[in-house]
Amino acid sequence: MYRTHTCGELRIAQTGQQVTLAGWVQTIRKFGSITFIDLRDRYGITQLLLGEELNSQLDQQPLGREFVLQATGVVSERSNKNPNLPTGDIEIKITSFSILNKSVTPPFTIQDDTDGGDDLRMKYRYLDLRRNLVKKNLELRYSVNRAARNYLHDNHFMDIETPFLIKSTPEGARDFVVPSRMNPGQFYALPQSPQTFKQLLMVSGYDRYYQVVKCFRDEDLRADRQPEFTQIDCEMAFVEQEDILNMFEGMVKHIFKAVKGIEVTEKVQRMSWEEAMWQFGNDKPDIRFGMQLLNIKSAFTKDGKLPATGDLIAGSDFKVFKEAETVLAIAVPGCSEYTRKQTDELTEWVKRPQIGMQGLVFIKCNTDGTYKSSVDKFFTEDKLKAIADAAGAKAGDLVLILAGAEERTRKAMSELRLEMGERLGLRKKDEFKLLWVLDFPLFEYAEDDNRWVARHHPFTSPKPDHIDIMIKNSPVIDNAAEYLKHPYANIKANAYDMVLNGNEIGGGSIRIFQRDLQEKMFAALGMSQEEALHKFGFLLGAFEYGAPPHGGIAFGFDRLCAILGGSESIRDFIAFPKNNSGRDVMLDAPSAIDQKQFDELQIKLNLQ
Amino acid sequence: MYRTHTCGELRIAQTGQQVTLAGWVQTIRKFGSITFIDLRDRYGITQLLLGEELNSQLDQQPLGREFVLQATGVVSERSNKNPNLPTGDIEIKITSFSILNKSVTPPFTIQDDTDGGDDLRMKYRYLDLRRNLVKKNLELRYSVNRAARNYLHDNHFMDIETPFLIKSTPEGARDFVVPSRMNPGQFYALPQSPQTFKQLLMVSGYDRYYQVVKCFRDEDLRADRQPEFTQIDCEMAFVEQEDILNMFEGMVKHIFKAVKGIEVTEKVQRMSWEEAMWQFGNDKPDIRFGMQLLNIKSAFTKDGKLPATGDLIAGSDFKVFKEAETVLAIAVPGCSEYTRKQTDELTEWVKRPQIGMQGLVFIKCNTDGTYKSSVDKFFTEDKLKAIADAAGAKAGDLVLILAGAEERTRKAMSELRLEMGERLGLRKKDEFKLLWVLDFPLFEYAEDDNRWVARHHPFTSPKPDHIDIMIKNSPVIDNAAEYLKHPYANIKANAYDMVLNGNEIGGGSIRIFQRDLQEKMFAALGMSQEEALHKFGFLLGAFEYGAPPHGGIAFGFDRLCAILGGSESIRDFIAFPKNNSGRDVMLDAPSAIDQKQFDELQIKLNLQ
Repeated sequence: MYRTHTCGELRIAQTGQQVTLAGWVQTIRKFGSITFIDLRDRYGITQLLLGEELNSQLDQQPLGREFVLQATGVVSERSNKNPNLPTGDIEIKITSFSILNKSVTPPFTIQDDTDGGDDLRMKYRYLDLRRNLVKKNLELRYSVNRAARNYLHDNHFMDIETPFLIKSTPEGARDFVVPSRMNPGQFYALPQSPQTFKQLLMVSGYDRYYQVVKCFRDEDLRADRQPEFTQIDCEMAFVEQEDILNMFEGMVKHIFKAVKGIEVTEKVQRMSWEEAMWQFGNDKPDIRFGMQLLNIKSAFTKDGKLPATGDLIAGSDFKVFKEAETVLAIAVPGCSEYTRKQTDELTEWVKRPQIGMQGLVFIKCNTDGTYKSSVDKFFTEDKLKAIADAAGAKAGDLVLILAGAEERTRKAMSELRLEMGERLGLRKKDEFKLLWVLDFPLFEYAEDDNRWVARHHPFTSPKPDHIDIMIKNSPVIDNAAEYLKHPYANIKANAYDMVLNGNEIGGGSIRIFQRDLQEKMFAALGMSQEEALHKFGFLLGAFEYGAPPHGGIAFGFDRLCAILGGSESIRDFIAFPKNNSGRDVMLDAPSAIDQKQFDELQIKLNLQ
Repeated sequence: MYRTHTCGELRIAQTGQQVTLAGWVQTIRKFGSITFIDLRDRYGITQLLLGEELNSQLDQQPLGREFVLQATGVVSERSNKNPNLPTGDIEIKITSFSILNKSVTPPFTIQDDTDGGDDLRMKYRYLDLRRNLVKKNLELRYSVNRAARNYLHDNHFMDIETPFLIKSTPEGARDFVVPSRMNPGQFYALPQSPQTFKQLLMVSGYDRYYQVVKCFRDEDLRADRQPEFTQIDCEMAFVEQEDILNMFEGMVKHIFKAVKGIEVTEKVQRMSWEEAMWQFGNDKPDIRFGMQLLNIKSAFTKDGKLPATGDLIAGSDFKVFKEAETVLAIAVPGCSEYTRKQTDELTEWVKRPQIGMQGLVFIKCNTDGTYKSSVDKFFTEDKLKAIADAAGAKAGDLVLILAGAEERTRKAMSELRLEMGERLGLRKKDEFKLLWVLDFPLFEYAEDDNRWVARHHPFTSPKPDHIDIMIKNSPVIDNAAEYLKHPYANIKANAYDMVLNGNEIGGGSIRIFQRDLQEKMFAALGMSQEEALHKFGFLLGAFEYGAPPHGGIAFGFDRLCAILGGSESIRDFIAFPKNNSGRDVMLDAPSAIDQKQFDELQIKLNLQ
């Protein structure tokens, strides 16, 4: 061993002990004939004191930042203690040292507040990983990993590895494929998830399975997506939805306790998908704050009841509201005194192309009991009050109103709500609010193909009451514009998402486990029998040999870690991430391959 | 939940309790109006008793093997108890049941002693996985996984995930490659191991890393190789070889204890590579038994000393020995009474093409003190005795002798030794003998390319004393036939393998951590500076910023599990293995992909 102790463990109790440390030179400070060195390793920082007698050696072998040093000396009490450092009471009076390796000057400072830009830090990721901030993230990731594993182990789950070289069954996202040299002309695919394997394991009787596993999707990378990502993947047999919800809110609570020391005792709140869309305009609502959406045109309150005030915009001649498909309001607490400049800025905000609204209407609920709005000439103060009351506004609040086409307006209002929550500091990084969103639609309409696609995946079971709707109706859509009127639009799934602070951290479903129902599902998605057999024959086959009822869930491990670490970016929680073009700029991958490799694989380029 | 208990947990103490079980029908036995069903799940088997009152229901809903059943009833003491079953004292008197799913007749019996052949069981792997034998293997695998993780965690190792989509750097084995859609014409590679990443993590200061991780090699599959396999991959910084040996023999001992209940207290035996080759003809000797090789032509004993008898074959006219490069002997205990038929059969065995010897000479050391051999006319009894004594034979033993070219003969004798060990029952499945093999050669000579290749990999450091040999000599080999005389042939590496019962279960090395030495290593392997920079520039770069001394090891997880499970085949310890053509016959993968996929990836087939 190059060391007797780490740079994080020595304390005043070890005074007088001879020790050897090894680590990186963080800082060097010279005071006359004395040199202080802060030596850093994974465990902390310890101050070394090099006295006069080592000066000549230092002159011959000059030290620099990030040099790797091994130093032996005696633990001594410090005169000026550093209370911010766990080792701050002591220093090591060095008697000998040797330089294990040199370092050229790093391209950026190895500090929390680094001067390195994103690209530079990606290129020198091995130096970025030295920063305390990044190290803390990876340590947190490991704790989450370990806490999840321990919980699952204690609940009789078994880690079973599933294969990475599987079959390409494009349906939904795009597969990464791998040419097979031993089977020329054929390709493996990398798994988008171990979905069918974990279901097969249920058929095989391994009734509680888990895996912390890499998954792959060849999608255009929006910000903060990675082509390879990690899932905590789980499946259980002989369970109903309720069992899964209980088991996995237990897991997340265990993780909170183990990793953050936060004890969550209350049951996780639940909300149907309908409710989430209605109240928050969003299937993954951030419930750290209120500001629920109110549809003032259809004149229902968030309870779905008509307010005592009756239809809230009836009788007004305001054309924008009259012609809009939907008019939505939120009550922003404590903002009634917004200046003209501030409301103008908000109006500009909703007009940005990402939000895409025509304008913003507001009502100030003044503390003196009066109401003032940007549409005063169309609404009496009583009407304004009625709208504000229905939206839940109190004196001092600001009501914001958007009008337009249903889908776009609801989405825009959801964004505006989050933005206002952010501006008012209601989305606290150290507050964690879990939520189950339930009863998702089974199908989504795919405009491009004019067909139904599975919202979750084709293995998700419909609600038992809704199976008949699926079986008794043809999936064919005659009038694409009216797809919402097709019976399939009303079928709900036994599917659930776990939401944390406005982010989906996990999602799953109770699965279909009967061959005939699974076949009908494939047919509903427009798959021919032949195609279904070609792609999923093994699963249909397995369902004939006594498949048990089962269901599961998968957690987005990168995202979960990022949120627990108080960050928006998953990239900070991955040791070697890729950039938005799917490149590893440190490795310079992907890259060209040799002609020999093309020849062996019997493929060639076909660049367009 | 579909059940209150599992099929493995009910005991006499629960008598009288109402319970609900769910599982698979293992057997059905009818006795008049009473039906017994053995219900199976992951946890065990419980006997159900269906009385007269349920008979009509059974008539309407006939049950069969592998049906999925849910049954409610009362725990009752059994009249004829089954002591072989943990639940054998009780049965459940069923009051109601329902069939959760049916099963067609399985293509083979779901039993330890199945009637299904290999191919059938691979195709219906989900049924094969139901067999108790296979389940036990996967459970063992999970215990090994968990024991390794716990040990590593307790020793401050951190699980850090490294990427799967990396850069192709073919050197040694062939890469699997993945075309990049976002970077047309470029390819990722799947990692053969996370080698460079774990070294970068050491440079980053994460001084103890581990991962249980899938690795990929596109090699022609010999029996019992898989294109994707799992490693327990570890690396440590600020360590010397001794530290790594201690840490990881600790891990393996911990696994033995946790998984097999075997306490290994003694230090793991160590042997140099030279010694292993000399004594066992093999760099992964099975040391559960002796029978070491003795070179009787060079006349040294296994201690490297000349026996008191002097040169053992000198003076004889036996041409085979005289002309052979090497003559090797082993003493097989207790076999002096082998019949002619038996020695003939052994002679045939060594003549098989896999062994490739011309013949076999034997000396019977009879219990009456006489010696009898197949070459009596060339050797006096005294000479025979001298050879037998030198080989360590006692009265009653049989000495076997092979002669021929050094390399082939040593390999053949190693095989013969293992075969005799097997035949004599000396290779006991429940005996576990660990061994460290040390001091491997740094280089191997690659005949095809007439150049040196790294025996372990290009990141392995030479022994400090041998660095100079590498630096001061050109790697060029003038006379290929005499490569053994090149100074590089003598360079030893700081490399080590852990061997268990004649199988390499882990291997590693102390790494190069200085840029200049690493560059010289690449040059020694015939890599141009440009090529080295192109392939490994990131690592060479990292070594400039303060790389610490480091080293590591990787264990073949599949193999380790197989040996602990007493099996020769890793396939039995992998949930979804591939066959020898790299095919998953259950999925039917690899397979053709769509034209759309080719177009998007901008590649096409180029079948020869």
